[in-house]
Amino acid sequence: MTSSTTPRWLLPEAIEDLLPAEAALVERLRRRLLDEYARHGYELVAPPLLEYVESLLTGSGRDLDLRTFKLVDQLSGRTVGVRADITPQVARIDAHLLNRKGVTRLCYCGSALHAVPASLLASREPLQIGTELYGHAGLEADIEIVRLLARSLALCAVPAVRIDLGHVAIFRAMAGAAQLSSEREQAVFAALQAKDVPALRELVGDIAEPVRSGLLALPELYGDRQVLDRAAALLPTFSEIGQALAELRRLADALAGLPLSFDLADLRGYHYHSGIVFAAYADGNPGAVALGGRYDKVGQAYGRGRAATGFSMDLREVAQLAPPETPGGAILAPWPEDDALHAETERLRAQGVTVVAALPGHDGTWRETGCDRILVRRGDEWIIESLKED
Amino acid sequence: MTSSTTPRWLLPEAIEDLLPAEAALVERLRRRLLDEYARHGYELVAPPLLEYVESLLTGSGRDLDLRTFKLVDQLSGRTVGVRADITPQVARIDAHLLNRKGVTRLCYCGSALHAVPASLLASREPLQIGTELYGHAGLEADIEIVRLLARSLALCAVPAVRIDLGHVAIFRAMAGAAQLSSEREQAVFAALQAKDVPALRELVGDIAEPVRSGLLALPELYGDRQVLDRAAALLPTFSEIGQALAELRRLADALAGLPLSFDLADLRGYHYHSGIVFAAYADGNPGAVALGGRYDKVGQAYGRGRAATGFSMDLREVAQLAPPETPGGAILAPWPEDDALHAETERLRAQGVTVVAALPGHDGTWRETGCDRILVRRGDEWIIESLKED
Repeated sequence: MTSSTTPRWLLPEAIEDLLPAEAALVERLRRRLLDEYARHGYELVAPPLLEYVESLLTGSGRDLDLRTFKLVDQLSGRTVGVRADITPQVARIDAHLLNRKGVTRLCYCGSALHAVPASLLASREPLQIGTELYGHAGLEADIEIVRLLARSLALCAVPAVRIDLGHVAIFRAMAGAAQLSSEREQAVFAALQAKDVPALRELVGDIAEPVRSGLLALPELYGDRQVLDRAAALLPTFSEIGQALAELRRLADALAGLPLSFDLADLRGYHYHSGIVFAAYADGNPGAVALGGRYDKVGQAYGRGRAATGFSMDLREVAQLAPPETPGGAILAPWPEDDALHAETERLRAQGVTVVAALPGHDGTWRETGCDRILVRRGDEWIIESLKED
Repeated sequence: MTSSTTPRWLLPEAIEDLLPAEAALVERLRRRLLDEYARHGYELVAPPLLEYVESLLTGSGRDLDLRTFKLVDQLSGRTVGVRADITPQVARIDAHLLNRKGVTRLCYCGSALHAVPASLLASREPLQIGTELYGHAGLEADIEIVRLLARSLALCAVPAVRIDLGHVAIFRAMAGAAQLSSEREQAVFAALQAKDVPALRELVGDIAEPVRSGLLALPELYGDRQVLDRAAALLPTFSEIGQALAELRRLADALAGLPLSFDLADLRGYHYHSGIVFAAYADGNPGAVALGGRYDKVGQAYGRGRAATGFSMDLREVAQLAPPETPGGAILAPWPEDDALHAETERLRAQGVTVVAALPGHDGTWRETGCDRILVRRGDEWIIESLKED
């Protein structure tokens, strides 16, 4: 205990309670999304908060490692971590526990913890919700996932104003052709992510053409669909790049109704992703509100390489962007409760109405608990009247 | 990494995934219970997984301390813990964040982590669900909470076969009268919890009557309502004890429809509880499936002493005892999807039906995803037929 002056009810930085109005909204959105996923055949799974770090960090990058809270398990003496990302856990479930032959659709909603926040304003306890589709390498799976992402945001009344599509195979093909060392690849990757063109220019100075020009072109390759034509003209004519651009064109055709945009330098999750990647943006939030992409390699690390694509988002963040919902109000049942009042209370509750029982000695504070009506006896009947101000 | 031979997908001891059938059941029970709590006026809150340990362990006993995973917060350098119990967090919310004058009803459902399992078979990641009622010191509040506990179990189809009632004031009054040192009180408490009569006899040997006989009588004071009469005869005639027995009698009258039993030596949560305590048992589980009681002192530690009573249970444990629910089945929508099929698929989903889209190249594995029917085109119409075996 470092400080006796810090009030006991202060929470750690970037950690927050959800109080009633916000908790109710998050719960409603959670149900709405999980129900939608269920109707699309996505089956709910709930991997644990705690795993051995080898398992949690399998196939993932250094970012996730730094972000993961680690501790020693008293029962095994081994290092365990609190999950910072649920996606690799779901890949583990697909690979080893379900072990199905065909296409498997899974969804989840649970808290993760970040030792350091993912961004300046991000919570360290995201409520991660998402869907994952395993066992199908075709673009049809990616199309289904991007549609579901857009629909998820629409169901939360936080519509996507822009969905950026990218493809990690483009950078990967160039890095491979140039035989970049792992450090150099990392440095070029970091410069691209930061769109730091001077640094990039310095880093690629001695790389042979056409890769040099290709890497230098990447930071400019963002915007509408014409980006794909410019990319075809500016990037090396490697078959992997041609295929990636063809995939992005097919995606653009299939998802014509969505606010698509392209960003070929966006390599978020590069260590983890293997193909199409996407990021959705909404009004009121500077960063992406939902991220996803193809990650065919993650299953391999668990001993069963399965094609995989999916998306996830932080439902707490999305709920903060969502319009507030009007609470439904509640009916006060006065004290004391007799059999007739009890029956009426239960009848109303069975209809889904909230009925709050008054307890003896506590008058005049009903409005703070949301009561706006009261049960009143008139002769033999209980009727509902509006509740006067306290 | 201690071992390269341990498979990466093994989970730590007493930690488990919830796979689709179980996750769906837990989700259904979760909603059923939270909806019931909402209809009784209990507002949902969601305190964080992580808090400073001073806050998490405020007012609690050594058990919770030992059970709490602790780590150093990189952002503050202070010790934080992953919650092992949500109840003190909800008391903190009532005391400091809501700060209401009147009766406040709160509910919650979230995961907690235990560094060591609470019992031999217990999970280290309980999904704790519960209700708490603040600001009312009367027995009416305890009655409402015990009723809600019984109803919760009934809603999960895991009816309580026995609800044990106890009262910590009985032991507390005797320990106070005998002026037991804190160590001795702890030792007597442990002997009582274990119903270890020889140890108890040794420990109370030099305590003056009538407390000595009273303490020795406690282990025998369990069973039906007659226990209360025997207690009145065998225990010291202290006013606190008389009042505690009177409260248990009132509770027994008010809850006559429930399978009540009494156990005056059951002091679970003694450090935390201040009055009535209760434990519910169900078929198929040796230990209690739900625990609760009055804990008027916890709020004090946060600087605002509020009367409090509540209960909680591990929904994962309850779900394991619940009868399995039959899955609803799903309809397969064949590939390729045209506009008419898309419209039909969306129409069915809007009705709450699960429609799984076939993806190209993946035939013959639909049954493993729960599909039992298929959409088939007959002329201009899409109709539903039963799906033949793969």
